[in-house]
Amino acid sequence: MSKTLLDLVKETDVVPYSITSSFNSSDCFSLIAHDGSGTLGFMIPKVVSILFEQFPSDFIIDYYASTLTLASHLDTEPKRSEAFARIAKTLKEKNFFPEVLGGWRNELYPVYCPQKELYLLVERAASPLFGVITYGVHITGYVGSENSKNPKELKVWTPRRAYNKPTFPGMLDNTVAGGLGHPYGVLETAIKECGEEAGLSEEYARSRLVPAGVISYWYRHKYSPELDLYQPEVEYVYDLPMDKVTVPKPVDGEVAEFKLWGVDELLREMRAGNFKPNTALVMIDFFIRHAIIDPEQEPDYLEITSRIHRRFPFPTR
Amino acid sequence: MSKTLLDLVKETDVVPYSITSSFNSSDCFSLIAHDGSGTLGFMIPKVVSILFEQFPSDFIIDYYASTLTLASHLDTEPKRSEAFARIAKTLKEKNFFPEVLGGWRNELYPVYCPQKELYLLVERAASPLFGVITYGVHITGYVGSENSKNPKELKVWTPRRAYNKPTFPGMLDNTVAGGLGHPYGVLETAIKECGEEAGLSEEYARSRLVPAGVISYWYRHKYSPELDLYQPEVEYVYDLPMDKVTVPKPVDGEVAEFKLWGVDELLREMRAGNFKPNTALVMIDFFIRHAIIDPEQEPDYLEITSRIHRRFPFPTR
Repeated sequence: MSKTLLDLVKETDVVPYSITSSFNSSDCFSLIAHDGSGTLGFMIPKVVSILFEQFPSDFIIDYYASTLTLASHLDTEPKRSEAFARIAKTLKEKNFFPEVLGGWRNELYPVYCPQKELYLLVERAASPLFGVITYGVHITGYVGSENSKNPKELKVWTPRRAYNKPTFPGMLDNTVAGGLGHPYGVLETAIKECGEEAGLSEEYARSRLVPAGVISYWYRHKYSPELDLYQPEVEYVYDLPMDKVTVPKPVDGEVAEFKLWGVDELLREMRAGNFKPNTALVMIDFFIRHAIIDPEQEPDYLEITSRIHRRFPFPTR
Repeated sequence: MSKTLLDLVKETDVVPYSITSSFNSSDCFSLIAHDGSGTLGFMIPKVVSILFEQFPSDFIIDYYASTLTLASHLDTEPKRSEAFARIAKTLKEKNFFPEVLGGWRNELYPVYCPQKELYLLVERAASPLFGVITYGVHITGYVGSENSKNPKELKVWTPRRAYNKPTFPGMLDNTVAGGLGHPYGVLETAIKECGEEAGLSEEYARSRLVPAGVISYWYRHKYSPELDLYQPEVEYVYDLPMDKVTVPKPVDGEVAEFKLWGVDELLREMRAGNFKPNTALVMIDFFIRHAIIDPEQEPDYLEITSRIHRRFPFPTR
């Protein structure tokens, strides 16, 4: 059955809005900074139990308040980053959470404190265990709207994910996307990913990439029936207006093929559930910004727009 | 002192995020639908007391829960709209809240129920008393970016509000803006306001207006020291790319003059606090969408973007 655009948003922005920083439930623990200055993420009890059992000197647990607080000796960023590196490595070596840690990346993701400063670094694959915000950049490469009066005539270079990818194999995706690892900048990451994922030269990407906003939503990723992890995500969005000659090419084996899709085809595939869920939100944002989705035609225009710009009850960059 | 862009956002999106639909405080009453199906708005105690005292058969008050609920006999939209028309008219005749009801408009604003259906209509000037969401459309008329590689070269037609306007006299404003009264559509209102406020023909506006999203924020408007009213606002935003010959003209006396401002001048005036507060947010959204504000340069990019797309704990259209 065909989905509405709001259905697509609700499947990705799934965490109820009743969950705020003061939320307290036996099903959901808050990860708290060592000095109590703020909540860093939300965790499921199964992960909290294992963490506290394995690393009792690094955390303080309060079952009544449903909080897991970093121990007070973790009072500098290097100490915390070192502790989280040790924790992630130990969990992996002891074969805890293989569904999650099997995708080990050797990339560090930053977590921020309320002063917007770097609070700690954590291995990318381990970040969903802590339920912290992760940052990325998503790029929409498109052709043919600039001189057209009708934005519906534009076409988007859309990759199909490799059929052997562990996550969302064979689904449609944004032209280029990547995680924002430490210490790389947003534009720097966008340019790098254009090369790695689509074979576009640094010069081509740098001269054409246009920053166009940032979306955010609170996903839960079900790694296994018992590991339905909180995953608040922030994706900086860039447009990449392309000429008609340049063709993106699969480079790193993560993409099966690139195809140039028209707006109506894209909307049909989105409504059929054939896009990787979060990338459908990037397409919706693109379509709103390019006047393809219109407040006169789309009944959920306002709700869609506010939900894909979710404000989190956590400190951010 | 120069303000940051986030300062401008915080001055307009002023209501704390801890206020959710289940918020309960003696300083803030919820206005509840007759069947308990949802919260319609937030009201200050001073207004609640007068309403209940003057119209005891139309409301049920619960001081403990801090709620004002519509009486159960108001069980159809026409009955509710009739009651609210009578209430607003009576308050005006008895000279309650002259700071608010002095601006009587003879325009009806819609309030929606959780099913997104029309729940009641209320006189525009009275709507802030009930703290319900109001809807509008804001249009940015600009010149000269389409063929330019540098979006910072575009210029925006910016009016200065008439010095005799009761609200925000002499401040800078969006090119065109207007409230979304019942039963007019968003585009229809945009076209009408282009004519009424800037002297642009229906044909000119219709062929050029481009829908570009919707912003939302929760303002409090201090009509007087004791009347600091909750004012959740939704503004549909349209871009109006203009040719270099057409000049907007003040028509209805609400505008002192139109001037074509460059990006750097606009940012300077915004930071100096010379824009009507909510219109600065429309400019910020425009600048983000047109790559003038960049995530690499603006430290509060994410927080700004999420706060100007606030999701309200009320039903919306």
